[in-house]
Amino acid sequence: MKKIALLFIIALFSFPVIASAQAVTPESVLQSLDMVWIMIAAFLVFFMHAGFAMVESGFTRSKNALNILMKNFMTMSIAAVLYFVVGYGIMFGTSGGGIIGIDGFFLTGQEDQIGFFVFQAVFAATCATIISGAVAERMKLNSYLLLTVLMTGFIYPVVGHWVWGGGWLSSLGFVDFAGSTVVHLTGALGAIVTVMFLGPRLGKYSGKTVNVIPGHNIPLGALGVFILWFGWFGFNGGSTLAADPSLIPSVVATTLLSASAGIIGSAFYSQAKFKRIDASLTLNGALAGLVGITAGTANVSLIGAIAIGLIAGVILVEAVQFLDRVARIDDPVGAIAVHGICGIWGTLAVGLFSVEGGLFYGGGISLLGIQAVGILAVIAWTMATTAGAVLLIKALTNGIRVSRQEEISGLDFAEHGSSAYESSRGIFNENPGSTADFGVDLLHRLDSLNNEPRKTDHKTAQ
Amino acid sequence: MKKIALLFIIALFSFPVIASAQAVTPESVLQSLDMVWIMIAAFLVFFMHAGFAMVESGFTRSKNALNILMKNFMTMSIAAVLYFVVGYGIMFGTSGGGIIGIDGFFLTGQEDQIGFFVFQAVFAATCATIISGAVAERMKLNSYLLLTVLMTGFIYPVVGHWVWGGGWLSSLGFVDFAGSTVVHLTGALGAIVTVMFLGPRLGKYSGKTVNVIPGHNIPLGALGVFILWFGWFGFNGGSTLAADPSLIPSVVATTLLSASAGIIGSAFYSQAKFKRIDASLTLNGALAGLVGITAGTANVSLIGAIAIGLIAGVILVEAVQFLDRVARIDDPVGAIAVHGICGIWGTLAVGLFSVEGGLFYGGGISLLGIQAVGILAVIAWTMATTAGAVLLIKALTNGIRVSRQEEISGLDFAEHGSSAYESSRGIFNENPGSTADFGVDLLHRLDSLNNEPRKTDHKTAQ
Amino acid sequence: MKKIALLFIIALFSFPVIASAQAVTPESVLQSLDMVWIMIAAFLVFFMHAGFAMVESGFTRSKNALNILMKNFMTMSIAAVLYFVVGYGIMFGTSGGGIIGIDGFFLTGQEDQIGFFVFQAVFAATCATIISGAVAERMKLNSYLLLTVLMTGFIYPVVGHWVWGGGWLSSLGFVDFAGSTVVHLTGALGAIVTVMFLGPRLGKYSGKTVNVIPGHNIPLGALGVFILWFGWFGFNGGSTLAADPSLIPSVVATTLLSASAGIIGSAFYSQAKFKRIDASLTLNGALAGLVGITAGTANVSLIGAIAIGLIAGVILVEAVQFLDRVARIDDPVGAIAVHGICGIWGTLAVGLFSVEGGLFYGGGISLLGIQAVGILAVIAWTMATTAGAVLLIKALTNGIRVSRQEEISGLDFAEHGSSAYESSRGIFNENPGSTADFGVDLLHRLDSLNNEPRKTDHKTAQ
Repeated sequence: MKKIALLFIIALFSFPVIASAQAVTPESVLQSLDMVWIMIAAFLVFFMHAGFAMVESGFTRSKNALNILMKNFMTMSIAAVLYFVVGYGIMFGTSGGGIIGIDGFFLTGQEDQIGFFVFQAVFAATCATIISGAVAERMKLNSYLLLTVLMTGFIYPVVGHWVWGGGWLSSLGFVDFAGSTVVHLTGALGAIVTVMFLGPRLGKYSGKTVNVIPGHNIPLGALGVFILWFGWFGFNGGSTLAADPSLIPSVVATTLLSASAGIIGSAFYSQAKFKRIDASLTLNGALAGLVGITAGTANVSLIGAIAIGLIAGVILVEAVQFLDRVARIDDPVGAIAVHGICGIWGTLAVGLFSVEGGLFYGGGISLLGIQAVGILAVIAWTMATTAGAVLLIKALTNGIRVSRQEEISGLDFAEHGSSAYESSRGIFNENPGSTADFGVDLLHRLDSLNNEPRKTDHKTAQ
Repeated sequence: MKKIALLFIIALFSFPVIASAQAVTPESVLQSLDMVWIMIAAFLVFFMHAGFAMVESGFTRSKNALNILMKNFMTMSIAAVLYFVVGYGIMFGTSGGGIIGIDGFFLTGQEDQIGFFVFQAVFAATCATIISGAVAERMKLNSYLLLTVLMTGFIYPVVGHWVWGGGWLSSLGFVDFAGSTVVHLTGALGAIVTVMFLGPRLGKYSGKTVNVIPGHNIPLGALGVFILWFGWFGFNGGSTLAADPSLIPSVVATTLLSASAGIIGSAFYSQAKFKRIDASLTLNGALAGLVGITAGTANVSLIGAIAIGLIAGVILVEAVQFLDRVARIDDPVGAIAVHGICGIWGTLAVGLFSVEGGLFYGGGISLLGIQAVGILAVIAWTMATTAGAVLLIKALTNGIRVSRQEEISGLDFAEHGSSAYESSRGIFNENPGSTADFGVDLLHRLDSLNNEPRKTDHKTAQ
Repeated sequence: MKKIALLFIIALFSFPVIASAQAVTPESVLQSLDMVWIMIAAFLVFFMHAGFAMVESGFTRSKNALNILMKNFMTMSIAAVLYFVVGYGIMFGTSGGGIIGIDGFFLTGQEDQIGFFVFQAVFAATCATIISGAVAERMKLNSYLLLTVLMTGFIYPVVGHWVWGGGWLSSLGFVDFAGSTVVHLTGALGAIVTVMFLGPRLGKYSGKTVNVIPGHNIPLGALGVFILWFGWFGFNGGSTLAADPSLIPSVVATTLLSASAGIIGSAFYSQAKFKRIDASLTLNGALAGLVGITAGTANVSLIGAIAIGLIAGVILVEAVQFLDRVARIDDPVGAIAVHGICGIWGTLAVGLFSVEGGLFYGGGISLLGIQAVGILAVIAWTMATTAGAVLLIKALTNGIRVSRQEEISGLDFAEHGSSAYESSRGIFNENPGSTADFGVDLLHRLDSLNNEPRKTDHKTAQ
């Protein structure tokens, strides 16, 4: 603790570094340009959190919308602070045996890397927030927050160290340019483990029946997908870490084309399979194409990107069906299929489509093998540590799942004493003449609930 | 086909170009900066599609919201892929007689233009998506998608070639800096022709009565307008194609001021005409100002921009009234007035307000005449080809309009077996005690609809 | 008037400046890079207006949503045009005694500052739009617009001149890097004065009871908060006015961390105080952290930023409670607490946390004293001039508040004859079989309202 306190003191006094005036040279201008590019990319990745929030609240029920939004905001906040305190050091500090970074906490000694820190901090938050969608509508807020702490402070940064921080996977030649595995698969693995502990939502599986629990506001979810796609240009484009004209246009173009192909793939595959273009699968198809291209965005051709996206779109449809109906893993927003299955696909696709070393380009199977090793290693690490984390949290918070009554009432009411859409009679106040219904004190309503559970009779409701 | 296949093979292997290391010079840094600017502008233009999606779904009825969103996503996807395959070549390939580009398919031989391709691809999608708003709530999805294919793969790129690809209109001196005509008018012409084939929505015109069919979610539509305006800074700003400090600030300022003036113009003109500030017209007034300034953004003064925007706002109000009530063209979101009429105004305004050659700046009527020629040529080409396209699609897809029953049920239900806002009782589940209503399988509902059309009695509803 | 007309003529002919070709030097490229940075920052600040619009409409009732959106759009428009005409000159023109700028109207003589003008114009609009949230649901649109005119054309630019335009406060050493005082406090002061004239909404305070009037669409409000945060990176980052790698990363990182800490602070403080994480306070906590860091973003350490944000989050909770329950100032969205109280905190925090001259860094209390003087001066100026402005407007527009009946009906209906969410039966048309309810002419409805006020009986409604 003393060492932490000391680091804290040092950090307190060491920012910002006021640079002495320097001569303007082509190199100094290029450095400024690189910085501008990374900053803008970081803004875009930050904005992806608005996208996640809209997708996750739109694709779930209105009674849990507020709770999901809170989870998204808190994830961003906790991740930013914790990544500053420990995450960045674990990920990019001096490597301890290729396994974990051992310095750089509070960015000590990394004062010239603040811009890079910001970019990486919003990445860390992305990994963590993937979980929030999969566990939506039933996980306790405080349990979720503790998991976010462990995810952004420890589990994710270790994976990041292996691949991007000079760790053993990077030494092996593992290629994951912008994080199909590091960010998306890691997040999805955290999600699947937590979901297995949590179990499905009430009413999702009744006997042999698999029920569809439709989202309450798909336009909001669709907006979220557009925001995610928009932000992804920063996610992939910024991962160049420099304003490199030989790299960025190609990265941006593969990102655009793969996402487009993902939509086309899932739309027409769902048309072939279900005789209609499924809206939810098509929206997720865009994300499938994006996750799919993320590992190889700098290494594949434009045609390769289209192929990767098309296949990702088809995989997505099958993965959602399999997880939902066969494996019976209840993932309200399809996060595990999108980020997990398509994350694996994207990582393997580098071994197939990379113009340098890919199987289809005459590179043999060696790169493909390395990619598989990386995936397996990340699966083993993340599933084991997340399982440990969840067990720990379960003990600390007296169970990670809300009560049956709370789940039925909705987490907005149960955890926040409030609701996302307000009016005592239907969502919008149709009754302008009355002021009697103003100001229902929600805390009061919460109390009543606790004493006298609200009963509803399906027949008389409405 | 063989040639296409060959091009495909070449394209497969030719990206990305890994540049050899080069010395850092002021010129090389400037080149990188230009690239960064174009990329960011492309991201912003991409994001405009979120704006279109929100405007179009917000301004129409909830029962068609999902279908419109699907159209927006599919338009972006199809446009990106097709523009890569053929559109870019037709637009920017070696000119065949000033009429059409004849090479550059799959970007072959254009490997150093990938960034420019991305910027142009999102433009192509913008042109196509304008149609989706005008044909909303009644056009079959598959017919719409075929039209998008022809629009982005052929009709639009030819217009683009004439003006921006070194074709005959650019030789003539036609000025359309960022696309009032190339993008907006072309899209609106595609829209008006298709709408004339489609006819109005059920219930829009009954005898002499013109009914208002209000949009279901104006806040979402308003967000869309803000997103479009935000993206437009990239649309106009990026059209400089370089980080030119003598041009970009002026382009951005004229864009800001013209949109602002468009709002002021339509707000106060609607106040004068209808004794209230009409919300829908005011929101469209922003877009009118934006479309209006797009052609001349780099050529007019800031005062000129304000004048152009003010007039665009007034024209918008009259154009919407005229098209809706006199011409009886049913355009649910006002796309034809915004992009068509104001696109023409913006293109002509260059002939009036351009500080170099404009009538009001002593340039005589010659530029104005050239602008008119360009407009007429684009009208002739786009109307003729779109009419041909629609006739072809009509034959291929057995009519371009959904059935009466499908239109009444809503396209979300009819085409996707789903709905944008879910709950079996009103939009939001007010009845947390029941799980019986979870998981209504929408496919099942779709089947029931087909067998036994849902009947509703207006009196007992609610 | 003659002088204004002359300036107008000059301005009409003086843009854009077509620069002569110049050699590419490191300096010229850096200049272009600075311009690109400022432009992108301006786009982001512009986009904050979408955030304000979503926050303000989401946190209020649906019956006033359209009216609030109109206020947001009109504020941006009026501010942009007026800031061009007079605001910029007052703020950045040649200083008249350190009090007010006296030239530069229509940007005359400032032709090379167009980019800077755009950045500053969207700032001016931000200050003005803060008021729209606090006065929501009861202020007349025309009164509000007149206030916006005076705010953006006079009151705000004078404050701006004092601090950023070379005026007396800057001479004194007052530090407000990006505008905790200049923009946020000034806007909040305008808000509090106007609210004191307006009084609370009907039904807000009944006897000793303080009623909660919940917002109708918190997901939209949450999206707005994300958009504001996203835009704030441009707000603070762009205030560097140059692509300075020694400054921007630090500014961005303090912005990220302070907002995150603001969320954490308000979430856990509300948990401690109310036994639940309050959603509305947590969302406002993000904004509190952002307003809090805005003054000192370039002067404090990353740890300092976290401390400032945490404290801002706690202050926010107390400030909202105090204003709402003790002072009984009805501010529907909490704008006065967020922008006013946290604006003061952020400005004072510079005196505490600045690494150069801050009390906690051994700088003594002199900087803190200067900061306090600045705050007091801005309070005096803004409250006095706003009070004068409101009195003037009150006289001109026959009262600034809508009638009781209009307030009960909602301002959407009363001022625009329309509504944000349409359908004659509940928000979304559940009744696809009927066309009878299409096309309710809203003007007609408005007329009926005027003749025969709609009566509603709470018991029979729904």
